[in-house]
Amino acid sequence: MRTVEWHNNGVRMIDQKRIPWELTHVDLSTYQQVAAAITDMTVRGAPAIGAAAAFGMALAAQNSTAQNLAALITDLEQAAHTLKAARPTAVNLAWAVDHMMKLAHNTPHTTVDDLRQALLKEAQRIADEDVAINRRMGEHGANLIKEGFTVLHHCNTGALATVDHGTALGVIRSAFEQGRKFHVLLDETRPRLQGSRLSAWELEQLGIPYHIIPDTAAGYFMQKGEVDLVLVGADRIVANGDFANKIGTYQIAVLAKENDIPFYTVAPTSTIDLTIATGKHIPIEERDPSEVLAPYGNALVPGHFKARNPAFDVTPHRYLTGIVTENGIAYPPFDESLRAIVK
Amino acid sequence: MRTVEWHNNGVRMIDQKRIPWELTHVDLSTYQQVAAAITDMTVRGAPAIGAAAAFGMALAAQNSTAQNLAALITDLEQAAHTLKAARPTAVNLAWAVDHMMKLAHNTPHTTVDDLRQALLKEAQRIADEDVAINRRMGEHGANLIKEGFTVLHHCNTGALATVDHGTALGVIRSAFEQGRKFHVLLDETRPRLQGSRLSAWELEQLGIPYHIIPDTAAGYFMQKGEVDLVLVGADRIVANGDFANKIGTYQIAVLAKENDIPFYTVAPTSTIDLTIATGKHIPIEERDPSEVLAPYGNALVPGHFKARNPAFDVTPHRYLTGIVTENGIAYPPFDESLRAIVK
Repeated sequence: MRTVEWHNNGVRMIDQKRIPWELTHVDLSTYQQVAAAITDMTVRGAPAIGAAAAFGMALAAQNSTAQNLAALITDLEQAAHTLKAARPTAVNLAWAVDHMMKLAHNTPHTTVDDLRQALLKEAQRIADEDVAINRRMGEHGANLIKEGFTVLHHCNTGALATVDHGTALGVIRSAFEQGRKFHVLLDETRPRLQGSRLSAWELEQLGIPYHIIPDTAAGYFMQKGEVDLVLVGADRIVANGDFANKIGTYQIAVLAKENDIPFYTVAPTSTIDLTIATGKHIPIEERDPSEVLAPYGNALVPGHFKARNPAFDVTPHRYLTGIVTENGIAYPPFDESLRAIVK
Repeated sequence: MRTVEWHNNGVRMIDQKRIPWELTHVDLSTYQQVAAAITDMTVRGAPAIGAAAAFGMALAAQNSTAQNLAALITDLEQAAHTLKAARPTAVNLAWAVDHMMKLAHNTPHTTVDDLRQALLKEAQRIADEDVAINRRMGEHGANLIKEGFTVLHHCNTGALATVDHGTALGVIRSAFEQGRKFHVLLDETRPRLQGSRLSAWELEQLGIPYHIIPDTAAGYFMQKGEVDLVLVGADRIVANGDFANKIGTYQIAVLAKENDIPFYTVAPTSTIDLTIATGKHIPIEERDPSEVLAPYGNALVPGHFKARNPAFDVTPHRYLTGIVTENGIAYPPFDESLRAIVK
C-alpha cells in the first residue's frame, strides 16, 4: 500500500498517527480534508505531503462546480492557498501545488473536464515519479553504507515519508536490498517520535537490524566511535546548502562534525529551493506544546506545564558532507553543485 | 519535606517516580530496600543517593543482630557491598558508603550500640551537610546568572536530586531568591524525563519561569542565540575535569562550545573522584530498554521494538567553562584547580 494514493475518486492515505499500533487508512473527499490531514500530520514527510497536496489539487478540481475554465482556475487558486498554508517549512508542498497551478495556467485545455483529467493525471505522475526518484536516490546513496557500518538516522524518511521506498531510509533500504549487512541507530525523535514509531516499524517490516535510542544518546554513540555514517532527510534545502529538517538535525550535524563522521542529507530535487539564499530565511513551524507534554494522548506531565515545540531546525551547510539526490550526490561548494544538479 | 530522611527508625524518601503527579513517600526498613530504591530510581540524583546510602548503612547497623563490634562490621561490609552495587556511575554513592565504613573501622567504639548510634549520627550529619553545601554552591554560582538571562538546564539537579535545595537547579534557585529575573529552558531529558517531570515540577513550586523543551531542541535555541548559560549537575568528576552526567550532557556541552555559550557543572566536592585520571575510566550504566519504549507505563511503541538505553555520558573537560563547588568555582586547568578545591 502506498502512503498516499488516489482511490475511489478521493485521496487515500495511511493514518501515520496510528502507526506502529495499526496499519489503517483514511479516505478524504475534499481538499480541505487533505489540508487538515497535512496539518495534523496524518500524513507527514516532505515528499509525502508534496504528493498529498498534488492529489488535493486534483480533488479540488474534481469537486469544483465551475462551468468554465476561468472559474475552475479560481477555485484551484483557493485550494492552492489552503493547501500551501497547511504547513510552512517543507518546500515540497509548495512545489507540488505550484507545479499543479502551472499546469492549469500554462497548458491549453479545451474543457473543464479536460483540465480535471489533466490535473489528476499529473498528480498520479508526481506520485509515481516520487517512487522512481526515491529508488534512484537509493542507488546513488547505497554505496555510502559499507559492510558492517552503523548508520545513525533521525526522524522518519522511509516509505511513510514519501509515496514509497523513502529518502534517507530509502538509501538504507537499497543498501540492504543489495545484500549489505549493517546496523541502524534510530533517534527516537521527540516530540512526535517518528524514529521510534515510524522508522522502527518500517525496519521491523524490512528485517533491517536497528536499535531505537533516546535523542539524548546520539552524541554518546558517536563519541564512542560506534557511528560510521549519519543519514537524514530534508524539508527544504536552499541555495547555499543550508537545510531545514526535523528538530534535532542541527545538533546531530554538529556532533557528527565534532566526531569526524560523514553526514549526508538525502532528498529529491523538489526539496531544493534555489529562491532562498541561506537557511536564515526558511520559515520554521512551531507546533502545539501538547505534543511535548502528552504525545499521542500519553500524558507524560501535567497539561498546565509549559513547553516550547519548534518542529524544525536549520543545519548550516558547513556541517554537511553531501546531498544525495535522484540526479547524484552534490558536494561542497553547494552554491555551485546544487545549481548543477537541479535540472 | 526532605528528599531523604531518617524517620521512625527507617529511611523515608520521596517517591520520585510519582512526581509530578503526587508528592508521596516510601518508608524503608532494610538496607536491601534502600539499595532497591536506588536501583529503581525511587531516589535518584548523585547527592541524594549518597545520603540515601549513608542512611542505608545506619539502617544496616540498626537491624544487625551482631553481638560484638567485629560481627557488626562484617554485617556492615555486606551492606556496603550491596549498596555500592545499586548504581555504578555516581561516585557519591560509593563516597558515602566508604565514609561510613571508615567511621566504623577507624573510630574507637565501646559497644555495638555505640557504633550504631555513631553511624546514624554521621548519616544525619551527611544529610544536613548536603543542604548546607548546596546553599554554599548556590551562593558561589548565583552570580553566573545575570538579569534577563535564559539558562539551559538538563535532567534534574534540584531539591529532589539532593537532600534539599539542589546543585545546578540550586544555583538557579539561589539567583531567584536574590531577586534576579531570568528564564529557564528545561531539557525534557529522555528517557526518564527528569527535566519535564521533576525540574518543571520544582520550578512550578518555586514560581521560576521556565519552558520544557524536547531534547532535540536544545541546539535550536542555542543556535538562535536564546541561551546565555548552560548549567548541569554531575555524577562523577575525575582528576582532569572530565565528568559523567545524565545522558545527553555531552551533546549539550559540544553545542554550547560551538555556540560560544558558557557551560558549567555544579557539584559538591563529594562528586569529585581524584582516583580516576580521565573520563574514559568512569563506568557507564546501561538501563532497561523498557524505559525508552514505555516510560512510566506509557507505551510509546510496542514492547518488542529494540532500544538501547545508556544512562550517562562523559563530557571531556575541554567543553567545560567551570565547575561550581561548595568551596568555590574551579576553572581550567582542572587537573590543578580540582586538587586545590578538594579540601
